[in-house]
Amino acid sequence: KRAREYGLKIGILPTGKNNAITDVPGVKVGHVTLTTGENVRTGVTAIVPHASNLFQEKVPAAVYVGNGFGKLAGSTQVQELGNLETPILLTNTLNVANAMNALISYTLQLPGNEKVQSVNGLVGETNDGYLNDIRGRHVTETHALQAIQQAKAGPVAEGNVGAGTGTVCFGFKGGIGTASRQVKPEQGGYTVGILVQTNFGGVLQINGAPVGEELKNYLTEQMKAKADGSCMMVVATDAPVDARNLERIAKRAMLGLGKTGGIAANGSGDYVIAFSTNPNLRVPHNAPEKTQTVTLLRNDEVTPLFQATIEATEEAILNSLFKAETLTGRDQHRIPALPIDQTLKILKKHHALQP
Amino acid sequence: KRAREYGLKIGILPTGKNNAITDVPGVKVGHVTLTTGENVRTGVTAIVPHASNLFQEKVPAAVYVGNGFGKLAGSTQVQELGNLETPILLTNTLNVANAMNALISYTLQLPGNEKVQSVNGLVGETNDGYLNDIRGRHVTETHALQAIQQAKAGPVAEGNVGAGTGTVCFGFKGGIGTASRQVKPEQGGYTVGILVQTNFGGVLQINGAPVGEELKNYLTEQMKAKADGSCMMVVATDAPVDARNLERIAKRAMLGLGKTGGIAANGSGDYVIAFSTNPNLRVPHNAPEKTQTVTLLRNDEVTPLFQATIEATEEAILNSLFKAETLTGRDQHRIPALPIDQTLKILKKHHALQP
Amino acid sequence: KRAREYGLKIGILPTGKNNAITDVPGVKVGHVTLTTGENVRTGVTAIVPHASNLFQEKVPAAVYVGNGFGKLAGSTQVQELGNLETPILLTNTLNVANAMNALISYTLQLPGNEKVQSVNGLVGETNDGYLNDIRGRHVTETHALQAIQQAKAGPVAEGNVGAGTGTVCFGFKGGIGTASRQVKPEQGGYTVGILVQTNFGGVLQINGAPVGEELKNYLTEQMKAKADGSCMMVVATDAPVDARNLERIAKRAMLGLGKTGGIAANGSGDYVIAFSTNPNLRVPHNAPEKTQTVTLLRNDEVTPLFQATIEATEEAILNSLFKAETLTGRDQHRIPALPIDQTLKILKKHHALQP
Amino acid sequence: KRAREYGLKIGILPTGKNNAITDVPGVKVGHVTLTTGENVRTGVTAIVPHASNLFQEKVPAAVYVGNGFGKLAGSTQVQELGNLETPILLTNTLNVANAMNALISYTLQLPGNEKVQSVNGLVGETNDGYLNDIRGRHVTETHALQAIQQAKAGPVAEGNVGAGTGTVCFGFKGGIGTASRQVKPEQGGYTVGILVQTNFGGVLQINGAPVGEELKNYLTEQMKAKADGSCMMVVATDAPVDARNLERIAKRAMLGLGKTGGIAANGSGDYVIAFSTNPNLRVPHNAPEKTQTVTLLRNDEVTPLFQATIEATEEAILNSLFKAETLTGRDQHRIPALPIDQTLKILKKHHALQP
Repeated sequence: KRAREYGLKIGILPTGKNNAITDVPGVKVGHVTLTTGENVRTGVTAIVPHASNLFQEKVPAAVYVGNGFGKLAGSTQVQELGNLETPILLTNTLNVANAMNALISYTLQLPGNEKVQSVNGLVGETNDGYLNDIRGRHVTETHALQAIQQAKAGPVAEGNVGAGTGTVCFGFKGGIGTASRQVKPEQGGYTVGILVQTNFGGVLQINGAPVGEELKNYLTEQMKAKADGSCMMVVATDAPVDARNLERIAKRAMLGLGKTGGIAANGSGDYVIAFSTNPNLRVPHNAPEKTQTVTLLRNDEVTPLFQATIEATEEAILNSLFKAETLTGRDQHRIPALPIDQTLKILKKHHALQP
Repeated sequence: KRAREYGLKIGILPTGKNNAITDVPGVKVGHVTLTTGENVRTGVTAIVPHASNLFQEKVPAAVYVGNGFGKLAGSTQVQELGNLETPILLTNTLNVANAMNALISYTLQLPGNEKVQSVNGLVGETNDGYLNDIRGRHVTETHALQAIQQAKAGPVAEGNVGAGTGTVCFGFKGGIGTASRQVKPEQGGYTVGILVQTNFGGVLQINGAPVGEELKNYLTEQMKAKADGSCMMVVATDAPVDARNLERIAKRAMLGLGKTGGIAANGSGDYVIAFSTNPNLRVPHNAPEKTQTVTLLRNDEVTPLFQATIEATEEAILNSLFKAETLTGRDQHRIPALPIDQTLKILKKHHALQP
Repeated sequence: KRAREYGLKIGILPTGKNNAITDVPGVKVGHVTLTTGENVRTGVTAIVPHASNLFQEKVPAAVYVGNGFGKLAGSTQVQELGNLETPILLTNTLNVANAMNALISYTLQLPGNEKVQSVNGLVGETNDGYLNDIRGRHVTETHALQAIQQAKAGPVAEGNVGAGTGTVCFGFKGGIGTASRQVKPEQGGYTVGILVQTNFGGVLQINGAPVGEELKNYLTEQMKAKADGSCMMVVATDAPVDARNLERIAKRAMLGLGKTGGIAANGSGDYVIAFSTNPNLRVPHNAPEKTQTVTLLRNDEVTPLFQATIEATEEAILNSLFKAETLTGRDQHRIPALPIDQTLKILKKHHALQP
Repeated sequence: KRAREYGLKIGILPTGKNNAITDVPGVKVGHVTLTTGENVRTGVTAIVPHASNLFQEKVPAAVYVGNGFGKLAGSTQVQELGNLETPILLTNTLNVANAMNALISYTLQLPGNEKVQSVNGLVGETNDGYLNDIRGRHVTETHALQAIQQAKAGPVAEGNVGAGTGTVCFGFKGGIGTASRQVKPEQGGYTVGILVQTNFGGVLQINGAPVGEELKNYLTEQMKAKADGSCMMVVATDAPVDARNLERIAKRAMLGLGKTGGIAANGSGDYVIAFSTNPNLRVPHNAPEKTQTVTLLRNDEVTPLFQATIEATEEAILNSLFKAETLTGRDQHRIPALPIDQTLKILKKHHALQP
């Protein structure tokens, strides 16, 4: 069950319909999960901003580097031009290149892209090497293409799926999580959706309750299981915000990570990718006009989106923990799921659940 | 009373002796508080990294811009050269220039600086215009010089003092707060000290407990009292870290702010200044040698400093709230102190106090 | 005479009417020059983006830090919010604070700003301490206000005026310079105007000719006369470009500096401020609407503005040299003007003048 | 012949022995050139900082983004941690992923790396799609591994080799170029070496002479042949500089590009990678100690390295042009070499050659 089904209510804003990144109209998510044999525990997750040809109709985007111990590919072009021209792929650290090849192949073969000679694929990663035979580099270009093709709207699978198959979070099994928020109608009624791939450490707090401390599982204890962590965070919104304000939104996701007890440790590659699906902001690859007319949210109006981002990131991380299951992988390494009963007991003690 | 005296224990690391930025050896703090008449509610706070001539013996330093809606002066040189050559001053938004003049005057007149022609003063600010006649620009160069001269080691006054005299935080009276942490001896035993000037909004959480929600005082309610917020955070450490790792430490202070419920709203100028007092890292203004030999903490060893920074920032912000007192100022504007009894009741309910 | 009057033609694009930053419609420049007694050789220069209340109608803007050994004030808010709300002032290093106070006073007293409590003044500087008694801090708030009030359209005084009164460039007398370029009508016909305050070293090249080498005046020779250099560059354009593309334009000014032989030495504070005067991009301080509709140049169309910026910066720097005059100042320090006859001889030899 | 063999002398500093990046002790360069059939005109170039296991003995490094329209992979970790753990590979835009896979394979199989689970490969690119069937993605992981294995010290092949096989520069055939400079013994006697992959446009200047204008080949004319340009610049030095000062050095390479007439057009991905081979600065992957003692150049002493970088970059770009040969490739596209006779005539006219 997801965090909210246990009675957790994070923050003050309402969720979207599915409490998922796909609540932002047009956004799709696809997972390919690899759990063959005893040692392969990995996968790939695709986030597709809209259904049309993304290269021909780019979306405004930003990348914020919370802690750059990671191999994210494609960030500098997004930062320079302020837009994104491919789906986003998340996978393991040593398969970023295969995923990048998939984004190139995917883009080159799309109808209308016959003459395209340049593709900036955006690929994030975390290191699942404790549970997964990461040196085997099992995620292929084909797997990554499948993730894109299987992407769909609606509820999103969480926990040990896709790029979250083999990840570890706060010493427990992490994975994929998602959540969403809606800002008030009088503030525009926009939706903010988040998807995270959780693989980091710290001192777990759930809705403020000191679960990590009471379970006596934090920091030093977690070190055993860690190569390099990472938390990839993807923020989607339909609000009309340009790259500059998307970067500001992206920075706020780190505050949501902090509220779960994450500390952005030295070895944790913490990145936030943010994009807007607002149709009026699409950036055509070619255009007859030299200018583009856009309607943008004023700086003064972005604060509710910040609040939404922080809340949704916190909840998405919690969802990844609540939905993940105990997993045994490489070399018989075993990572337990968050112990739900004990956790609920702690949450109750701290009045952290809804009555 | 300070947060800890009410039974709050933030995080897992022990505090320094005074739980203050001055626990970092050599660091001194001075306040000048202006509360004349009905409308003047402002002041200036000085943080002095060491007792020698700072211009001649600069300290490694970094500035991180959490949200740049602010008038911090001096950041680009700190970022370029990686060092700080003056004390740090905090004051109100419209008196940054007077404080900068004070740092120049102070530096020019120091023995040994007779030929100095260039001074990079570092001045932070928040906007106290709700309680203070900020347009009157009451903090003079003389006040700022007094703050430097009065700086002393040991316990630090908190709440409605110095640059925190007229600030507002989460809809309650904010001000100056401080805290410190010590990392384990086997991790170097270093001290991290924080001083904050709190003037921002959000949804207050205290040690995880949803105090803002239960007091029904957050966001929209706070808007009335706000011009532009800001949270200035100053981090000192004796750990041997260079400017690059100081910047990473500075970034973590934002996570501490997030844990109190801060959201770095559009109008909030949230800046973190970090410096190291480690004697082996002092940067001489002139030197006969072309090189300098320094002993630096490896990247792999900075994580405990991140944890310490997050915890101390969270506690410093709470201290600013617990120590501040209800204040009436400009045009009879009145900002209540955090209602201690109600707050303690909420904290107890959530098991957020030590038994 | 200006560079072009001697037969120099820099680059391939045509100049605007006055070959000055004021060719960008609405931009005004004002200088106050202080040359009293034997030791005061300094001043202040104001660049005013448009004639209305700038605080109420902000302009899109960016700041690029070429080399941050400088005391520029106001950069972080411009970078965060993407706009500028005051005139720009340039002065000497130790009078930045007085200039900042002037911008605050100026803004607070403007009709319509009666309730303003926050002002982000943008002030740049270079160090004129070799020729000027900089420690005397002779530029007052009053001088800075006069520079704003005296700002006017049309031709701009260059050389030993305003903030360029006491500066040194390539070992010769530097100062204020300006230039402009127009992009082709089919590329939008936009104007780019530059104003520089030159106070830096390197190996002077004029339109490619190795003047510094042939005059045997470079680097080591220049060191005597230098405290810390700096080159402040201000770029104005009427092209409809947002803060992101203004930052990209600002970066190109550094290439123009490089083409004159500048090397952005360690001690040189090289900053570029860029803003757009395009009326459709004005940012109202308050607005009834939550969104703003703007028409922006597409990324693909900004290259001509880059070319224009590089050319105009190169020429503006040369103008500062050609227009400056030999000056004796503090402690009888004397800096010669560029020796025009010898220089022209070198330029002829290298076919660097128009026939 | 190289630029200098024609009598060009760029700047005021002497070159190293081979006027190549390999003049920096320990640095090796390897090329694999692919020119099969009528349409394949591409390749890959490896720059290897030292002969030992780079992952176990990382080097201080920085990446500066001059203009981020490019697909450089690996930048964020270099920027965060300040070091480089693999060789650098340069190739074409659509083969970055294959090169990244090569760096991972190379690193995983090195003796001593049996347990490595995380590799940050640094790969740069430019777009050779006018002359090369770039959509065919002909550079394989095997080619990239060969480039690393074939890397050697001594003179470096330039022009149509390796990653420069199919590139176009100022409308002429570009390619690989290299150069080096030595700073004076009294300034440390350090060597700075540069290698460039030139694929960009502008208005060509050679040693200040307006060759592009006089050959009537610039900008608009060049547009036909361009997809997206790019100039990759790699700077090596044996000077003891940390990541912060390496970033400053990297920024100066852009000034060298500017002096050749480059403008960093919108579509040009201009990146600079800088590293130090200084043995005392190697960063061990694992170490028993928590600290590392290093001897670093003071800020005040880096200016000669800036000068060296600017000069060597300018000359490396010119070498790429002088050494490249006319090439016919994909779809019978033909790019002429720089017309040497005409060019020398222009250079003579402008006294730009040594007597």
